[in-house]
Amino acid sequence: MKKLINDPDDVVDEMLDGMLAAYPDRLRRLPDTQVMVREDAPVDGKVSLVTGGGSGHEPTHAGYIGDGMLDGAAAGGVFSSPTADEFEALIDACDGGDGVLAIIKNYEGDVMNFETAIELAEMEGVEVESVVVDDDVAVEDSLYTSGRRGVCGTILVHKAAGAKAAEGADLSEVKRVAEKVIDNVGTMGMALTSCVTPEKGEPTFDLGDDEIELGIGIHGEPGTERTETMPADAVTDELTETVLDDLDVEAGEEVLTIVNGMGGTPEMELFVVNRRLQELLGEHEIETHDAWVGDYMTSLDMEGLSITVCVLDDELKGLFDAPADTPGLSVQ
Amino acid sequence: MKKLINDPDDVVDEMLDGMLAAYPDRLRRLPDTQVMVREDAPVDGKVSLVTGGGSGHEPTHAGYIGDGMLDGAAAGGVFSSPTADEFEALIDACDGGDGVLAIIKNYEGDVMNFETAIELAEMEGVEVESVVVDDDVAVEDSLYTSGRRGVCGTILVHKAAGAKAAEGADLSEVKRVAEKVIDNVGTMGMALTSCVTPEKGEPTFDLGDDEIELGIGIHGEPGTERTETMPADAVTDELTETVLDDLDVEAGEEVLTIVNGMGGTPEMELFVVNRRLQELLGEHEIETHDAWVGDYMTSLDMEGLSITVCVLDDELKGLFDAPADTPGLSVQ
Repeated sequence: MKKLINDPDDVVDEMLDGMLAAYPDRLRRLPDTQVMVREDAPVDGKVSLVTGGGSGHEPTHAGYIGDGMLDGAAAGGVFSSPTADEFEALIDACDGGDGVLAIIKNYEGDVMNFETAIELAEMEGVEVESVVVDDDVAVEDSLYTSGRRGVCGTILVHKAAGAKAAEGADLSEVKRVAEKVIDNVGTMGMALTSCVTPEKGEPTFDLGDDEIELGIGIHGEPGTERTETMPADAVTDELTETVLDDLDVEAGEEVLTIVNGMGGTPEMELFVVNRRLQELLGEHEIETHDAWVGDYMTSLDMEGLSITVCVLDDELKGLFDAPADTPGLSVQ
Repeated sequence: MKKLINDPDDVVDEMLDGMLAAYPDRLRRLPDTQVMVREDAPVDGKVSLVTGGGSGHEPTHAGYIGDGMLDGAAAGGVFSSPTADEFEALIDACDGGDGVLAIIKNYEGDVMNFETAIELAEMEGVEVESVVVDDDVAVEDSLYTSGRRGVCGTILVHKAAGAKAAEGADLSEVKRVAEKVIDNVGTMGMALTSCVTPEKGEPTFDLGDDEIELGIGIHGEPGTERTETMPADAVTDELTETVLDDLDVEAGEEVLTIVNGMGGTPEMELFVVNRRLQELLGEHEIETHDAWVGDYMTSLDMEGLSITVCVLDDELKGLFDAPADTPGLSVQ
């Protein structure tokens, strides 16, 4: 399998430098780390938001650093967690004195290392709270998690909590908003192809020419069902109905949706799926407040997508509509 | 080859409806056409910008409709030109009385059908000017063109001319800016894999597991050279040096660069390439004013990328920095 890389051992380091070279006025890389922060971090007078996790999910994580979203993010190796030391350096660099919210995707390594870092930061007097995102409705436990996996719904936690922090809300309020999103969001993914990691250079798993995998994770972890290929509308219905059932969404409610490409999926196909998604929501008399379509949380070169639904109230609507200016998401 | 589509005959229609469902407040589709325009078209008091071409290059073309860029775009079938009738409907819907600039990528079908449409619109009293973008430095003539192909540099024409139109400049001034970009921009692409069209369902051309194609077009047209796979830095050097030679860029000049993914390329790899691109420009003492990295003009699911360089003066810098708010590009 061919890739546009140099030495696989350098790929994360070179990616981060390439990102920095694209956004030198917005981002800053902490020396001798894989931690990226706002160029002007720490920002005074607001709660800071930090996150992190394995690389290979770009624009997640550092792509959401900027006004109205994150203050910083730690990048691990491809599909592997950052160390506790890197998470601690991240927290220290972003703390402006008004407290830090750590947004953690539910993977064992991320949770363990972030929690260690939080303890260390608290010993140094930093006020830190954390939330764990577990929006993947496909599986209860998985290869890398006890409990549900954290996937694309995490972006909505960054967005809503980031907007709340930008309003000047205190740490407990920002955390409350993050938890509200987590309570109201669900995601399910599928894949047409496996991803190929730079190190291995071969598909993580095998899928036949006439097979797709439903309920896939963002690291090529097994899903819930391997089936024959289906038309886009049938795939959309399967994913969406599973998410709606899980969230128990009722007619008359308003939602924000994401059709998220896994990295190798043409935008054309994402829009074909969004067409059916919005049609289906209409059949359920569920109203779409906003529909995002694009590559938000990827899995290297995997072909496939996930569908995220977040049930809204007036507060969340206002926070999702608030301005944001980051490399990966812009709301004007 | 698997795709997330329904009937291949419906893919463009369903894609456009899915795009409309994502941006109902921004876009409007002209009834019984594949033409998309601003929701509030025609906009009075400014020159209107229109474009179009084959589908499969998303977010090109309709993704750049919005404040500071395009007023409308016609979508053909996958890799095929819109008809003259559709181009004419586009011009009619976007004309607000201050003239229309048609931005045409240099493909024979696009040029012929757009020119016919312009003649028809002029007979109805619409003032129309046009420019033809031919930024691909790889080949002099190609499968679908006499002269160079129009590729990713076209986005910069949309951006600069769109910003000039938003300032209230007249049609001749907007056209002058578009031509200035065309005179100063060059692009070269490469592919790791072929694209697969929905209709054919198989690779457009064959590339071995250890081969890449340099100088590729955005429809899988042959490039200039098929070589063994190379490290990302060597690919970057080859593409960039060819573009710099063609543009005759000198030390001390300022440029805007684009590392453009072809649709199936992970963002990680685009940033790895951007790292070397910016390093190389530094070695040449060429200064980067802005570096864009992402999927701007794609070729369905092709893995590969193109590198675009545009030489800037103060006017172009100001126009590229000006605000834009479209689904595919946002400048705040």
